[in-house]
Amino acid sequence: MKKATVVGAGLVGSLWTALLAKRGYRVDVYERRTDSRKAGYAGGRSINLALSNRGWKALERAGLAEAIAREAIPMSHRVMHAVDGSLVRQPYGKDGQAIYSVSRGGLNEQLMTLAEQSGNVHLHFDRRCVDVDLKSGAAAFESGDGSLERVEPGLLFATDGAYSAIRSAMIKTDRYQYQQQYIDHGYKELHIPAGPNGAYQMEKNALHIWPRGGYMLIALPNPDGSFTLTLFFAWEGPESFASLPTTDDAEAFFARIFPDALSLMPDFRAQWDTNPASSLVIMRCDPWQFNGTVALIGDAAHAIVPFYGQGMNAGFEDCTVLDDLLDAHGEDWPNVLPEYSRIQKPNGDAIAELALLNFIEMRDLVGQPEFLLQKKIEAWFSNKHPDRWTPLYTQVTFSHTPYAEALANGRRQEAIMREVMALPDLEERWDSADVEALLLERTTR
Amino acid sequence: MKKATVVGAGLVGSLWTALLAKRGYRVDVYERRTDSRKAGYAGGRSINLALSNRGWKALERAGLAEAIAREAIPMSHRVMHAVDGSLVRQPYGKDGQAIYSVSRGGLNEQLMTLAEQSGNVHLHFDRRCVDVDLKSGAAAFESGDGSLERVEPGLLFATDGAYSAIRSAMIKTDRYQYQQQYIDHGYKELHIPAGPNGAYQMEKNALHIWPRGGYMLIALPNPDGSFTLTLFFAWEGPESFASLPTTDDAEAFFARIFPDALSLMPDFRAQWDTNPASSLVIMRCDPWQFNGTVALIGDAAHAIVPFYGQGMNAGFEDCTVLDDLLDAHGEDWPNVLPEYSRIQKPNGDAIAELALLNFIEMRDLVGQPEFLLQKKIEAWFSNKHPDRWTPLYTQVTFSHTPYAEALANGRRQEAIMREVMALPDLEERWDSADVEALLLERTTR
Repeated sequence: MKKATVVGAGLVGSLWTALLAKRGYRVDVYERRTDSRKAGYAGGRSINLALSNRGWKALERAGLAEAIAREAIPMSHRVMHAVDGSLVRQPYGKDGQAIYSVSRGGLNEQLMTLAEQSGNVHLHFDRRCVDVDLKSGAAAFESGDGSLERVEPGLLFATDGAYSAIRSAMIKTDRYQYQQQYIDHGYKELHIPAGPNGAYQMEKNALHIWPRGGYMLIALPNPDGSFTLTLFFAWEGPESFASLPTTDDAEAFFARIFPDALSLMPDFRAQWDTNPASSLVIMRCDPWQFNGTVALIGDAAHAIVPFYGQGMNAGFEDCTVLDDLLDAHGEDWPNVLPEYSRIQKPNGDAIAELALLNFIEMRDLVGQPEFLLQKKIEAWFSNKHPDRWTPLYTQVTFSHTPYAEALANGRRQEAIMREVMALPDLEERWDSADVEALLLERTTR
Repeated sequence: MKKATVVGAGLVGSLWTALLAKRGYRVDVYERRTDSRKAGYAGGRSINLALSNRGWKALERAGLAEAIAREAIPMSHRVMHAVDGSLVRQPYGKDGQAIYSVSRGGLNEQLMTLAEQSGNVHLHFDRRCVDVDLKSGAAAFESGDGSLERVEPGLLFATDGAYSAIRSAMIKTDRYQYQQQYIDHGYKELHIPAGPNGAYQMEKNALHIWPRGGYMLIALPNPDGSFTLTLFFAWEGPESFASLPTTDDAEAFFARIFPDALSLMPDFRAQWDTNPASSLVIMRCDPWQFNGTVALIGDAAHAIVPFYGQGMNAGFEDCTVLDDLLDAHGEDWPNVLPEYSRIQKPNGDAIAELALLNFIEMRDLVGQPEFLLQKKIEAWFSNKHPDRWTPLYTQVTFSHTPYAEALANGRRQEAIMREVMALPDLEERWDSADVEALLLERTTR
């Protein structure tokens, strides 16, 4: 029987395991954490996530899309909250296009159960990877009681996240490229409870943003009527975690900067004190495989900052790309894994870059009328001439265009839009024949 | 008694130990390798090195400069070897300025002996660092026989090189910045033996370069009349290690590209087969210290490519900077170590950048008349107006200007020289009043 080992039963690990099982592999999965389905979800990472087209494609392939869709909350637009409480709405795409708020824990558990139902999958929890032989794919895992379990040489998939133990071993091999880059901002999660009878206290089908220039607060809806908030904030500086040493400081800051959000959190003080501030890291490495035997998938290969809502979607796309390669090359792993690395590495770099750029867009640009006008022009032109223009956000979120291609397209579009935005009196004639003519000329193939 | 632990008894570790001993510290040094003074030098790294002003300063402070100077071979200029065997000479600086070829093994051994002679230093060989507590500075070392030796909490200095075990532990701490970047080229060392009666078979007091565009061969003189050659060559591509799979291929390539060098190596074929090709890596990390207790010095903090001949010099400068800070702050380590990291990190980044740029200069530009003319003009103007112009090479090699400052100066100079080099008929009037006037105008403060 065909066999494989997967290290890490997170979102990507569980999905990849399900796809391997569909191919008839017997899969042993080793997970550092305990089984959240028995012990409750441990947390430590973001509570909800934005699922978009790349993610749905992989879930469809695994046969889980329908079940997930029942609980997912569509967010068809952004709602920007100004300090004075006024709101501005910006659609993410065309009618019917949306990103979806899903529960990380719930999705993860459904994926694990799906994988197990295949009958070919064995999940081993509380197992920490302590040794790996990259050449053969052999590995050793330690249980909570200190006992060691050895896995025979064979196919080994590292889906153990940003701090991957397998990648740690790869880093020590000759000519291995690696970078870990922590950004100047960290994040802290907060929570807006549901109102009476589970009512949403803000618009449900939206991603809420409080853009404040150098930092921002965002909120995603949960099925129970609550919202999960995340403050993205510098570690140091005049407006930073360091500048708010006490709970009073934090409350006064929120009262001044995020008054509408604060008013919806009666237990803000307790939350602020209890919830940790965590760091944000970008991990880049190359290659994503070793010896045609060991492969990195998801965050283990390309941890990114969360600002494009693409972390999970990128990891799931790794799975569909790898799955496609197996279809094309007939499970010829020694050829497929290097090919997978070669194809996906530039896409990992691109989404890392796009996610950083989107931080600036979300925390700063979406609060500026000029930017919103630019996006309105792009949407208008794209609607009239879909063959000439697909907005970058749409390419990233609602298409399967490789990220590297989307980034390159986005750069070309940005140069064109700089020209358009320099036109005089644009506010009055943003949808005029002049603007259309210029865009048509610049997008002539 | 004041105590410290040093991990790594290489060049930087031994020098730093000597400086600590001078300050009255009892120092325990743990070295992974065996004692080369007993077992012979193990090699594995370049055989000779270029020592320049920053290095000499540190050796003077340790009291070893005079002894080293007796064996060091001054190299006052570059000698470029064309394919047809013609030679071009380019001085490194003014009369009397030179870089010095020294034996890595010999210098290392003299530094170790010097440190031991203080009476306060204990060198422990064959000890591999297997554990470190960054917070306290406690560490554990494993002997060849598997026994473990624990070092109590206290000051801990990591001078264990590019693959530092201490830095490996730092990498796992939150918000630690790290990058390992392997370049596309590797290197292979070769050897030109001395002629009859120990005669040098090429000009002795020079660094020889065979610039060939995308790659190069260099040679440094040894005291015994031989030269150590290093081929810097791409791993992959049309002209690369991969393109020369057999000894015949390599010999044919040398016969075509480096005929004069090949003619001086009767045993070329054996050397090519025996000597390994090694990789070249740049390591960047931040910070260079932890908790005011553990510090990275030398390659452990900033491994660089060897093309500026500054690797050892940069590491030695770390020692003098740290030593100066101790003088200024009175051995207040919890303040001195963060200050050392803050000051030296930008200099580490700068010399990493300078070293990469110098690869292009050495392998390509020094073979071009245009470039040599530019350098001649800079030297001429600098001689006439030393207050206005110090050539970049001189700043890096013959001064103690911080590397970051030198790099910034160099960039300004390069912009000015682009203007100068665009003047018509420059070859005839490179030392004319016009050229001088333009340079005077551009360098007006």
